[in-house]
Amino acid sequence: MAEPMDYASAGVDIDLEGSAVASLIASLGRSTRQPGTPGAPVDLPGGFGGLIEFGDSLLALATDGVGSKLQIASALNQWGGVGIDCMAMNVNDLLCVGAEPIAFVDYVAVPKPDPETHAALGASLAEACRLARVTLAGGETASLPGIVTELDLSGTALGYVKKGDTITGENLKSGDVLIGLPSSGIHSNGYSLVRKVMEHTGAQYTDEAPFAVASIGRSVLRFEGQEGRPFTLGEVFLNPTKIYCDPVVDLLHACATDEVAFSIADLHGICHVTGGGLSNLLRLHDQLGWHIDAPLQPHPEFEWLQNVGGIETREMYRTFNMGCGMIIAVDAEHASDICDWLAQRLTGVAIIGSVNDAGHKVTHAIEGVEFTHY
Amino acid sequence: MAEPMDYASAGVDIDLEGSAVASLIASLGRSTRQPGTPGAPVDLPGGFGGLIEFGDSLLALATDGVGSKLQIASALNQWGGVGIDCMAMNVNDLLCVGAEPIAFVDYVAVPKPDPETHAALGASLAEACRLARVTLAGGETASLPGIVTELDLSGTALGYVKKGDTITGENLKSGDVLIGLPSSGIHSNGYSLVRKVMEHTGAQYTDEAPFAVASIGRSVLRFEGQEGRPFTLGEVFLNPTKIYCDPVVDLLHACATDEVAFSIADLHGICHVTGGGLSNLLRLHDQLGWHIDAPLQPHPEFEWLQNVGGIETREMYRTFNMGCGMIIAVDAEHASDICDWLAQRLTGVAIIGSVNDAGHKVTHAIEGVEFTHY
Repeated sequence: MAEPMDYASAGVDIDLEGSAVASLIASLGRSTRQPGTPGAPVDLPGGFGGLIEFGDSLLALATDGVGSKLQIASALNQWGGVGIDCMAMNVNDLLCVGAEPIAFVDYVAVPKPDPETHAALGASLAEACRLARVTLAGGETASLPGIVTELDLSGTALGYVKKGDTITGENLKSGDVLIGLPSSGIHSNGYSLVRKVMEHTGAQYTDEAPFAVASIGRSVLRFEGQEGRPFTLGEVFLNPTKIYCDPVVDLLHACATDEVAFSIADLHGICHVTGGGLSNLLRLHDQLGWHIDAPLQPHPEFEWLQNVGGIETREMYRTFNMGCGMIIAVDAEHASDICDWLAQRLTGVAIIGSVNDAGHKVTHAIEGVEFTHY
Repeated sequence: MAEPMDYASAGVDIDLEGSAVASLIASLGRSTRQPGTPGAPVDLPGGFGGLIEFGDSLLALATDGVGSKLQIASALNQWGGVGIDCMAMNVNDLLCVGAEPIAFVDYVAVPKPDPETHAALGASLAEACRLARVTLAGGETASLPGIVTELDLSGTALGYVKKGDTITGENLKSGDVLIGLPSSGIHSNGYSLVRKVMEHTGAQYTDEAPFAVASIGRSVLRFEGQEGRPFTLGEVFLNPTKIYCDPVVDLLHACATDEVAFSIADLHGICHVTGGGLSNLLRLHDQLGWHIDAPLQPHPEFEWLQNVGGIETREMYRTFNMGCGMIIAVDAEHASDICDWLAQRLTGVAIIGSVNDAGHKVTHAIEGVEFTHY
């Protein structure tokens, strides 16, 4: 290929998006709700979830959609995983502040309602609620033939955390240890680039995946009729996003008991690795640096996309999770205890790096994979 | 016109939508969250808002979008009101169960982010937060060029109510009095029909409104450059939806004090008049009937739409709010007290009808305006 592919050339202008969002935020004033009353805003660094006061607790809301992954689901008419994607994108954000997700609402916009698609979405959302242990507290389906050309799915999750138990990043320090939680595949970010690579190669989503899918182990592919034949590329790409409530909510609960030697104060920061890849770590602290010296193994679909798309390695790590969907920064003293506790509940959890004071920067075992801004 | 226009011919198939939503709901299981723990679901009739347990309180979530009204905002590039519409559609639903809204998140899907549009949206959402007295606790802007052709805006509101203070409809009885709260215009429902009428007439949104807009009084039109010239049709149609937090949240608060003779137990049901118009009343109770004998005056834009579109009167009342955006059913003993209290805070509030036991039906002073199902 003449030019390597990147995320911007795939039609997503991250800077323009940032500028649009900044315009929106600049227009917002402060809340009229007074500190100490229900609904008063609580500021935390990182901004993974918005927190408000509620008695002895803080409530957190997270809102997000599945994005262009939906276009692959549309093309294949396979909706079984996207409810899980939608849930994961939201509840995983709540976990980052130490909040336990408790409820969820979905928003579906369609050009025309289709009962069969909705039944599949409903089943997917029901499984998502079970995996995330939340109540589906409502939802809306809007018919918008003049606005959407195919189905859009987003949602909002509600969580809570006791005052004083939030994970804010303020205890982060040089020497903290990074624990990586394996992803289940591409999750729900980077699909504009996935689709561009597919267009470029001329490959079909129904083509057999030209790599050893079974070896990835930690993926759970959810398609009827797959048994007895190899996975297709579409099935690999639609693999639903990992919901980290199990084991992270259990970890938060365990911290409050005497059963473990560590406490909530040993969890210094949690990062949901979404769009922006490892650069998301920079959102957790203004000054500290992050080094990944023992990365988790990326799934084979990442290698395939990089090779056939001619994508630079740094761009891969800025666009995709590359095998690691969540990173927990913990106190070094208890790092191996916490890692072992998590690894017993989620195969593949491992220590992947550490926090340093060499500047606000992410570095990586792979030279050139380096980020200085989110 | 050969055939009268109706909502279905405008491209919205309410039955198909209902069937799609039923498919989705049928796929959902019960929550795994146990009664008495945070997040356990609480069933209420009507379904305006989903309630979950949280200590001594119930939390309520409502999610909804602005719908095809956005297409008029897009056509005119006028975004100043749609944030208020989005807020209103959600917080007004929360009020129906007696919940006080405290926080909100927005979801914006665009083909391409535009900082100017986002600044206008931000200003609109900021004003909406002030009017609804909530904290904006987050938001998401998604670039989805393959899914949306123009901007879609939805949101989720969070509210709370003390256990025992919910308004469930279970105290409704024959003889209860209906208090109508004036709308500010078309609000956020029925715009597929509005757009169809406009197409049919060939009128432009920039045409001067051919009716006496100023006389409506209770509308607040929000467009720059309007001063000194008559309102256009587009400006009338984009008039933002009334947010009823003021006066309804204040009414809920007043009920808990000794300052008034009535209490929360005298508020038997609250109906947000949205898509489906007056038929929404049927959602509040399984058996009781509703008669509107003294309707509020509809705004002149409704009469104009009906006349130029050749729309049947019943269809108008099934599609639009016809001047009344919220209905509160109260105990007859305190009805005039409560109505006076509200009328001092919102001009135009009046007693419009009563509850009866003549069957599960809505009837109206205008013969033929009758609904037996939502």
